[in-house]
Amino acid sequence: MINTPYLLFLGDAPDALAAKVAQGIRDWRPEFCVGQHRMTGCKADMGLTDMTLIEARSAGARTLVIGVANRGGTISQAWKKVLVQALESGFDLASGLHNLLCDEPDLVAAAKANGRALHDVRVPSVDYPIANGIKRQGKRCLAVGTDCSVGKMYTAMCMEREMRDRGMNATFRATGQTGILITGNGVPLDAVIADFMAGSVEYLTPDNDVDHWDLIEGQGSLFHVSYSGVTMALIHGGQPDALILSHEPTRTHMRGLPDYDLPSLETLRDMALPLARIANPSCQVVGISVNTKAMQDNAAREYLAEIEMRMGLPATDPFRYGSGSLVDALAKI
Amino acid sequence: MINTPYLLFLGDAPDALAAKVAQGIRDWRPEFCVGQHRMTGCKADMGLTDMTLIEARSAGARTLVIGVANRGGTISQAWKKVLVQALESGFDLASGLHNLLCDEPDLVAAAKANGRALHDVRVPSVDYPIANGIKRQGKRCLAVGTDCSVGKMYTAMCMEREMRDRGMNATFRATGQTGILITGNGVPLDAVIADFMAGSVEYLTPDNDVDHWDLIEGQGSLFHVSYSGVTMALIHGGQPDALILSHEPTRTHMRGLPDYDLPSLETLRDMALPLARIANPSCQVVGISVNTKAMQDNAAREYLAEIEMRMGLPATDPFRYGSGSLVDALAKI
Repeated sequence: MINTPYLLFLGDAPDALAAKVAQGIRDWRPEFCVGQHRMTGCKADMGLTDMTLIEARSAGARTLVIGVANRGGTISQAWKKVLVQALESGFDLASGLHNLLCDEPDLVAAAKANGRALHDVRVPSVDYPIANGIKRQGKRCLAVGTDCSVGKMYTAMCMEREMRDRGMNATFRATGQTGILITGNGVPLDAVIADFMAGSVEYLTPDNDVDHWDLIEGQGSLFHVSYSGVTMALIHGGQPDALILSHEPTRTHMRGLPDYDLPSLETLRDMALPLARIANPSCQVVGISVNTKAMQDNAAREYLAEIEMRMGLPATDPFRYGSGSLVDALAKI
Repeated sequence: MINTPYLLFLGDAPDALAAKVAQGIRDWRPEFCVGQHRMTGCKADMGLTDMTLIEARSAGARTLVIGVANRGGTISQAWKKVLVQALESGFDLASGLHNLLCDEPDLVAAAKANGRALHDVRVPSVDYPIANGIKRQGKRCLAVGTDCSVGKMYTAMCMEREMRDRGMNATFRATGQTGILITGNGVPLDAVIADFMAGSVEYLTPDNDVDHWDLIEGQGSLFHVSYSGVTMALIHGGQPDALILSHEPTRTHMRGLPDYDLPSLETLRDMALPLARIANPSCQVVGISVNTKAMQDNAAREYLAEIEMRMGLPATDPFRYGSGSLVDALAKI
């Protein structure tokens, strides 16, 4: 668990995209964001108050979150100075970079000297159990995609917000680095050892109130040969009651695999549902989330209407048009 | 790669079962076995010449393989003495125990002082790539099970032997600790980090001669919620041309999961084949291997005949009745 609230470190981000982790935190947990800290030349802006480390500490910030990625995921010497000062000012540090905080001797030394914590969210910090498959109380929803990076995390985030707005009992469960930095906890599933993957998802989504929904962040795709094992572990460890099918209609091939076509939504449904029913025989496919970012409004609405008709399920771009229809479907389970 | 040939260390094995790793090496790679080394009270016997460390070194043995497991997978003080002597006598050590050789300071020191290697086959020793899904040359066969521990490794081993006897070009590819100790190399798949599972299987089964068959050791089951992600990675990383369905007919529930029934062979076929065709559209299910150990000969033969009729595929217990019909089926691809 990472201490909140945060000061978002944007470093010397060359553009807005480089700060997408910070953007995610800003979008989904504004209440965690005390301010932003930018270095000379920073081209990203979260619209938060620019603060020095001291100002942010006075305003209550407890963790400096590295919300920016360098090319290669490294920690530059210029950043290092700020990070050491932050530790000396009483901040914990949190990072999702490939270059781990705990692999940098000067950061480790400064953290130790000042009694602060270094959170590398790429590295599991828990010895997860092997999955036992025992049915848990409460309900769980998982988005499964025709491909990687089609909007599964944003779908779960949008649904959590909508459900909370309606007074429903719901929790987003992060399984990736960005999700963990956004929410302050979770399981870095792609870094978990094979035998413990499904167990880590059980650990992440334990017994809960009967009316509680876990909105589990999806990963990979059953149809993406590089990561399908991770998706499989989510489906069996998460024992979802509800699946959302996620799709990006303009993708011409599977991400990073030029020789692989995307499956249809029907093919995804027919593969994912029987697999999910192994762990939870009452699992249902309840709706479809489409990432229409690359489409004009008209084309997107037409596409969604066509999908609804064809599949007989609510279809929306939850980030663009709201997730109300998906939440309506969940509420009926 | 572990240096061969081996001296098999049986320690103070309380019974034959405790030495099942040694038994596997003895059964499948007798040409690697120079002899056995037993301590006082050892109840296991591989039928090999009992040798002192010095005798075995003189006979050419290069690695002492721990072919026995203590309760809890620990390295006892009594074993430690022998292991240190072995390092001093010029042996490398190889082990699949949970208690790693490289976590024992006295073994590490003795290995270093004598310039010897410690092989912990539970721990990956390679930085595996992320799978790229590119079609590889040569052919690959994978056994997929209705459950874990139904005989997938023995199926592949039997087929490799039969194929080599026929002069076919075939290699068993180990994905588990026992298989790695038997053959001297492989990928400890259950210990690989999630993102690299499928890539490790690609690494294990690279481009090969057009007529070469990899016989990939299966792991877990698509229907076993604890390990299905590992199975999925094998199916997609291995891009098999041929699947063998493996089954144990007397199992009353999934191993370790009392609330989970085994699937039928038909259900396994209908789940595994479409998943395999994502990576290799020409994949076929070619036969069925049944572990009939718990059945009388008559019952076993009747069961196999019934399965052949029902499924329209060759069915055999490859260890009991030979794998000829499975290899015949492979030879037709």
